[in-house]
Amino acid sequence: MTNNDRRNFIAMALLAPFSVGTAVAAEQTGQPHSTHMYMPDSTVHWEGNEQIAMLIYPGMTIMDLIGPHCMLGSMMGAKIYLVSKSLAPVTSDAGVTIVPTATFETCPRDITVLFTPGGTDGTLAAAVDHDTLAFMADRGARAKYVTSVCSGSLILGAAGLLKGYKATSHWSCRNALAGFGAIPTDARVVRDRNRITGAGVTAGLDFGLTMVAELRSRFYAECTQLVSEYDPHPPFSAGSMKTAPAKVKADMVELLAGFTKKAEELAAASAKSGSGWND
Amino acid sequence: MTNNDRRNFIAMALLAPFSVGTAVAAEQTGQPHSTHMYMPDSTVHWEGNEQIAMLIYPGMTIMDLIGPHCMLGSMMGAKIYLVSKSLAPVTSDAGVTIVPTATFETCPRDITVLFTPGGTDGTLAAAVDHDTLAFMADRGARAKYVTSVCSGSLILGAAGLLKGYKATSHWSCRNALAGFGAIPTDARVVRDRNRITGAGVTAGLDFGLTMVAELRSRFYAECTQLVSEYDPHPPFSAGSMKTAPAKVKADMVELLAGFTKKAEELAAASAKSGSGWND
Repeated sequence: MTNNDRRNFIAMALLAPFSVGTAVAAEQTGQPHSTHMYMPDSTVHWEGNEQIAMLIYPGMTIMDLIGPHCMLGSMMGAKIYLVSKSLAPVTSDAGVTIVPTATFETCPRDITVLFTPGGTDGTLAAAVDHDTLAFMADRGARAKYVTSVCSGSLILGAAGLLKGYKATSHWSCRNALAGFGAIPTDARVVRDRNRITGAGVTAGLDFGLTMVAELRSRFYAECTQLVSEYDPHPPFSAGSMKTAPAKVKADMVELLAGFTKKAEELAAASAKSGSGWND
Repeated sequence: MTNNDRRNFIAMALLAPFSVGTAVAAEQTGQPHSTHMYMPDSTVHWEGNEQIAMLIYPGMTIMDLIGPHCMLGSMMGAKIYLVSKSLAPVTSDAGVTIVPTATFETCPRDITVLFTPGGTDGTLAAAVDHDTLAFMADRGARAKYVTSVCSGSLILGAAGLLKGYKATSHWSCRNALAGFGAIPTDARVVRDRNRITGAGVTAGLDFGLTMVAELRSRFYAECTQLVSEYDPHPPFSAGSMKTAPAKVKADMVELLAGFTKKAEELAAASAKSGSGWND
């Protein structure tokens, strides 16, 4: 393998995730894509074959999806499915419309990672939608990892996938997870056996890197981190309930009070009806 | 205004950017949306009327777009246009397809913020595309702020918008900016008069918060930061050329060498042809 081959190989693996892009594009156009390439360095697992299903639904927060996608998309050979009820475009809470690549029916039955983003009203609607919960419960029962970012954990909980597991969520609805039988846990990324959940919105980047290290290696994740230049320098320190100024916290707690209440009602209804959606 | 009204008001302003979402959705469906609401607190500018044009093009890195959108989308009353050549869906380098909301023709002529995301081959193609450069040069000449994240600054440079300005980019192509007459500057977010540029990919979050503070206030930006729970905890420290392990750096510099070379050739050709695209 020449230096040029090696460069091209690594480029396909990591460069602004061409590898997954190629796989998805090939899937859509029906063109074949290469699945066998030589390893440039036998100590590094450059290629894998993960099947990753990312739920998308109307009203989701698109940053919850794209943060993890930015990291997971670097994995050479992995396939990412953006899964929805149908192939009709889906509009996020902030008005970004994206096109699904698979439906609940066409998504592979056995997947490596099941993931759901969060949101607010759209998430509460998805968390009581029969087809969505049936899909999540079915794939979640066999997936190697069951994961979420932000209030996406409400959907995992509603699908009966968090019973007895530590999990996190957006700060506004983390405590509600107890209603689903989960153990609310305050951390950026929470792992309990094969359940891996991230905190609110931007935690998807930390979650995504954690997953790349889990699925590939620390070295692979570090390469992904450098290519995505994930060296955060927030201009302010208001990103957590522990650090935000008092008035910021007070106003935002009030802002989200309605959502917090609805999330708790959702979880309480789940607790009342028994031990979960599909029991 | 009751507490409930106030809560609903703030919710519209900040909650997983309903405000912009509403504006975009209203635009698309032809339904009116409210532009006049009462302020809950006269010391806080909850509402504005910024017109924000975000360029989208095939092969862009979608995280470069969604990071800033996550923050800018919190601004009550602002309108965000996802602008492309046509309304045909646009697929990112990693295979995420999004639907534009405006074209080069329908995008307002006078805008508050002009923004472009980066990428690799797709960005190099956009940076030599006549229609794209004409759009950027036209809106950029009158925009209050001319901005980019990652290698998007190559497009600004190619459109003649960085001559004599300090600017940054992804580490792999930052030095190439000199060919466009810019002054390459190594920082997470670089401001020189009304040019504000962010470093690679995930720098879009820091860039976005900086813009919210600039357009609204520090308090507004801090509220946005708390709602998006932007309290980063990268599991590794490899996000910058200053901190990444030596082998990670060496492999990624090699990985991106082809792109670095092409970016330098693009800028050199621009320098050779005179002082910019539209001279």
